[in-house]
Amino acid sequence: MADASCPVPFSTYERVVLAHGGGGRVMHRLIDELFLAAFGADPLRAQHDGAVIEVSGLLAVTTDAFTVRPLVFPGGDIGSLAVHGTVNDLVCCGATPTQMTVSFILEEGLALERLRAIVGSMAAAAREVGLTIVAGDTKVVERGKGDGVFISATGLGRVITPGPLSPSRVRPGDAVLVTGPVGDHGVAVMLEREGLSVDTVGDFVSDAASCLPQLRALLDAGVDLRCLRDPTRGGLATVLNEIARAAEVGVHLDDAAVPVRAEVRDACELLGLDPLYVACEGRLVVFVPEPDAPAALAALRATPGSEGAARVGAVTREHAGLVMAASSFGTTRVLDLLSGEQLPRIC
Amino acid sequence: MADASCPVPFSTYERVVLAHGGGGRVMHRLIDELFLAAFGADPLRAQHDGAVIEVSGLLAVTTDAFTVRPLVFPGGDIGSLAVHGTVNDLVCCGATPTQMTVSFILEEGLALERLRAIVGSMAAAAREVGLTIVAGDTKVVERGKGDGVFISATGLGRVITPGPLSPSRVRPGDAVLVTGPVGDHGVAVMLEREGLSVDTVGDFVSDAASCLPQLRALLDAGVDLRCLRDPTRGGLATVLNEIARAAEVGVHLDDAAVPVRAEVRDACELLGLDPLYVACEGRLVVFVPEPDAPAALAALRATPGSEGAARVGAVTREHAGLVMAASSFGTTRVLDLLSGEQLPRIC
Repeated sequence: MADASCPVPFSTYERVVLAHGGGGRVMHRLIDELFLAAFGADPLRAQHDGAVIEVSGLLAVTTDAFTVRPLVFPGGDIGSLAVHGTVNDLVCCGATPTQMTVSFILEEGLALERLRAIVGSMAAAAREVGLTIVAGDTKVVERGKGDGVFISATGLGRVITPGPLSPSRVRPGDAVLVTGPVGDHGVAVMLEREGLSVDTVGDFVSDAASCLPQLRALLDAGVDLRCLRDPTRGGLATVLNEIARAAEVGVHLDDAAVPVRAEVRDACELLGLDPLYVACEGRLVVFVPEPDAPAALAALRATPGSEGAARVGAVTREHAGLVMAASSFGTTRVLDLLSGEQLPRIC
Repeated sequence: MADASCPVPFSTYERVVLAHGGGGRVMHRLIDELFLAAFGADPLRAQHDGAVIEVSGLLAVTTDAFTVRPLVFPGGDIGSLAVHGTVNDLVCCGATPTQMTVSFILEEGLALERLRAIVGSMAAAAREVGLTIVAGDTKVVERGKGDGVFISATGLGRVITPGPLSPSRVRPGDAVLVTGPVGDHGVAVMLEREGLSVDTVGDFVSDAASCLPQLRALLDAGVDLRCLRDPTRGGLATVLNEIARAAEVGVHLDDAAVPVRAEVRDACELLGLDPLYVACEGRLVVFVPEPDAPAALAALRATPGSEGAARVGAVTREHAGLVMAASSFGTTRVLDLLSGEQLPRIC
């Protein structure tokens, strides 16, 4: 438990016990010395049943549970992932993140140092985008009734796009862009989970990151955004299917134009995965009117982290509700929703 | 799976499988046929990454995870409890509930009929208070990595009190009221969990309910509310300790004045519990200036469900940070925070 940055040992316990969720002295100490020390927002310090914030205008609200396994992976952990995932859902609503609430479901026996590291990386990711954690909750379940830590997060954000973004705004003729190579997050988590050595298969880091800079760059470039979606569970192919159904349009995808890093492609082959269905946690799928596509691409490519942005397809009137993928051999196939998933517990 | 109220079987599965959280066809079907069918709010139907709502003024924000065991208990289930708990935290912020987000962490193997019942009672409890469920998420974890279903809920509400409610507003001389007998929720859940027969120990029903009528009654009566708190985990004694610490005041509790139903007192004796520390899920602790106490009590007692409201103590300048309980024998003791808890997973 020795740590120069933490002068006071934050608990006499080394592991989570049921009492940490019990409402008594042990829980109050955990909240004071771990959560408040890391998050330190005034509304939290008031230690009331909730926060009161002043708002006006359009408020975006998103929520997600995070159950990623393992808890720590190359490029992040469940704490930073919960913030990035929340931020990116707000970004997809055209919003800049403002406040966040977070609840933890801890399994008895979790090492408190592990929890402190997760909470620390959560706090750091929140600070990075100016997000204040205004309310929280902690529950503890018995050993074998949870899996280390689950995090549920709700994000609030101020809408900064001129109009609402929504699948229903997508129109035939729109261009489809991605903000960078796909599949890095899923592959990095999967290899870490399976304990596959980096030496054997290459060097993999999750793409998990905030996409707020990308939203800002697109707005600064004056692009008319139709819809944004982050391709998490189910990857790019699933997001395109969701949009095709919701907007009642077809989507034409140019297989060869989809950026996939060579290492990721190789690892997917090794693992028997299709990279089009592998989760990203730091990418956006961007729908813009065709005339705005060059400006959108240029703005993205000038944004750190999105140098690899690419145009990958177009929205069509034909094949409403379907995604048609064209291979470099000239063949076309329906890129359907999978029944289940390739990768459980990726986020 | 036959149910006259559900003409379409909502899934070809009878139990939750990992694919229900996988982002693919099976998950979409669960969302469409179970969650949207029950919650049916327009923002949810848009099936975007979040909702956009128009707001202005003071917004209350609360969050909680619910891990109660068993999932169903006399008087409610984890679904209705998640709504009542969220509503009551908003009420404690002086707010009327408006929107809610909810995320589910499901364990592989959970019966879908069980889930449908939980979601149904959640929807009913939300309708009762005019709460719209605007965003949600579902994750599935492997068998043995969860416990049926965990729910995390975040509530948004419009502040309707003239000023903010907060522990820091509590003053020496204030009266302390409770809105009804304490301990019913904890005892009902505990007896159900332990499988103790109702015939043996009496008839127990959780008090879980929305406390919005009580807030409205107090405001209609023109009472100057200092602070409201719902005595959930750790019960009345814990809430009084939290307020005493946060407001840097003492609290004098009159043991004999605390309403506890005789059956609850008997069951607590049987289970070795102190009812002052047993959770309620439909009660408020109310702090008002002494001159307002009679009007507050009268308003509460005229509100269905709070006929048993009582004045239980007063705020003192002495013993700052402590709760002093006076017994009917004239003795006084410090009513301290417990170290851990009497009852794990009560909410």
